Amino acid sequence: MSIETLKSRIAREFGTPAVVIDLDRVERNIARIQAICDAAGVANRPHIKTHKSPVLAKLQQQAGARGITAQKLGEAEVMVEGGLDDILISYNILGEEKTGRLGNLLQRADITVAADNPVTIDGLSLAGRIAGRPLGVVIECDTGRKRAGVETAGEAIELARQIKARPDLAFRGFLFYPTEKSWPETQKFFESARAGVQALGLEAKIVSTGGTPNLGNVGKLAGATEHRAGTYIFNDRMMVACGAATLDDCALNVYATVVSRAAPERGILDSGSKTLTADPGGGLDGYGLILDYPQARISGFAEEHGFLDLSRTNERPKVGEVVRIIPNHVCVVVNMVDRLIAVRGGEVVDVLPVAARGRLG
Amino acid sequence: MSIETLKSRIAREFGTPAVVIDLDRVERNIARIQAICDAAGVANRPHIKTHKSPVLAKLQQQAGARGITAQKLGEAEVMVEGGLDDILISYNILGEEKTGRLGNLLQRADITVAADNPVTIDGLSLAGRIAGRPLGVVIECDTGRKRAGVETAGEAIELARQIKARPDLAFRGFLFYPTEKSWPETQKFFESARAGVQALGLEAKIVSTGGTPNLGNVGKLAGATEHRAGTYIFNDRMMVACGAATLDDCALNVYATVVSRAAPERGILDSGSKTLTADPGGGLDGYGLILDYPQARISGFAEEHGFLDLSRTNERPKVGEVVRIIPNHVCVVVNMVDRLIAVRGGEVVDVLPVAARGRLG
Repeated sequence: MSIETLKSRIAREFGTPAVVIDLDRVERNIARIQAICDAAGVANRPHIKTHKSPVLAKLQQQAGARGITAQKLGEAEVMVEGGLDDILISYNILGEEKTGRLGNLLQRADITVAADNPVTIDGLSLAGRIAGRPLGVVIECDTGRKRAGVETAGEAIELARQIKARPDLAFRGFLFYPTEKSWPETQKFFESARAGVQALGLEAKIVSTGGTPNLGNVGKLAGATEHRAGTYIFNDRMMVACGAATLDDCALNVYATVVSRAAPERGILDSGSKTLTADPGGGLDGYGLILDYPQARISGFAEEHGFLDLSRTNERPKVGEVVRIIPNHVCVVVNMVDRLIAVRGGEVVDVLPVAARGRLG
Repeated sequence: MSIETLKSRIAREFGTPAVVIDLDRVERNIARIQAICDAAGVANRPHIKTHKSPVLAKLQQQAGARGITAQKLGEAEVMVEGGLDDILISYNILGEEKTGRLGNLLQRADITVAADNPVTIDGLSLAGRIAGRPLGVVIECDTGRKRAGVETAGEAIELARQIKARPDLAFRGFLFYPTEKSWPETQKFFESARAGVQALGLEAKIVSTGGTPNLGNVGKLAGATEHRAGTYIFNDRMMVACGAATLDDCALNVYATVVSRAAPERGILDSGSKTLTADPGGGLDGYGLILDYPQARISGFAEEHGFLDLSRTNERPKVGEVVRIIPNHVCVVVNMVDRLIAVRGGEVVDVLPVAARGRLG
């Protein structure tokens, strides 16, 4: 089927905007990352925040992934309902509403959570108590991103000691997300923290690194046991910009219709900030790459309007034309929609619910 | 109930992040706008893109609104299912998937749509044909925003002529969204366009102005019949910044928990770009106002992390604390969630589904 036929068919059957994934590319991306992890001798624990679909998580599992990563409890719950197990929630889970749910989930599946402070560790005990078995905890360590994560090996060791002191918790290891430049620092941090926990009689069974931008660094941390990457399954303009993917690796497109061309050098797409999101992609030019008109620029948004700047292109779409957009950041775009339209060889083959969307916590 | 008790209760019952609306403020905002429209002698046609809730649309209707505005077909469908009628969709509806649905909807409710080009008008005929009665169309006119809308009265008149020529369509009038400075220009545009359509034997029954930032200008266009405003029902930092609302008028808060405090001058909230959105609010400082720590700054996001910059404040929240945030832009925040928690007098009184969320087209 030609791309024009596919565009017409998707517009006719589903309307636009539509979020479309190419399953051939998805499977190629899954296989590529699995091969990278296999070659580095680390387990692949893909991050499902990107797709939020148990169906796609199972594809990753079938390709060789060992467990999955979730960024919040609601995502983990949906994955367990969908038949997945061995889930690392790479986030501080806080508050009785959540630790209670976490306890219920732990009765049904193997769950590990991250923590970077004593308040979180204190609260997590409830989950283990509810489940009647210890909850696995990894210490989140910051080596350069300055978001969550303890800043020193000493703090990490102290938290491991606190975990050890609680019968409802089990120390599992360390969670890292090094920046491009912080691998040597991460190595030192890890070795110092490992020595400290070994002195406490603890073993770091999980030593986790993360990030699609870090795919070139998988295995670089000596002693790492696994890597968490999410975006690679679809890729986006940010991943192309940082060299982690090519345009051919981009498996997700937003199909949009040109709904207005009020002047020669501008137009309106029916995809605004409620579809493509205002994510600037770390300073990219515009809010998406239009594959059909690469010189056109999505210069801004209203909620349902994408502002097309056509001043740099002589090829200009007409009102009614359907175009395909690679978004700046796929993870936040998937989060806007309830379904992904799956195509293969230019044919629509499936519609996948974004099952874990809308779970705020 | 004290605010601390309410925060604890919401965190315990619903978890965070939670999107909470204060119904007393909502009703006050609704009454205020109705009074402004009444005083100006124009109908109030509130824009439901902000709340996407038939329950809240009915509150607006009961207070005196005449019809509602929707920004897409899916929103209008949910409103009709919820018992609303007289809906203006202020958007070019294009493509057979949508014009077919529009025809079905027109069988059940009074619908008017906007158009700014001949392709849209050509396609809209199908809706009237399906419904067996003419679809009302208003001409969208641009007087300064440079997004959708014809740029000259001559174009507007020509489109009115095309509508008149089609038995399945009925000309209804003009849609404007003037900028703060373009009211004189809008007046000239309107008078010229009105004269033109009168010469065709047509009457502009709807002359619609829009925008919460324009609440001070309601009635300024001589001949206007109605005003469309959306954001006023909740308000946000943008509306405070432009003078359309005070902080006391802000009826929606995101309740978030501090989940990490890895260093003295920074912390992490459990509300990132998948909750508060990356909407910069037209150049505001940071991504939301934390009512409990107004000197703290939400400096950036990961998907589930809000980065707290605490360098300007000596009052610093602890891990586990719940804070209330006024977002930069409420319309896009409501669009992220499936429910709004409604409070009144500090008590939780209802949970409202964001019924029209997730309808992409």
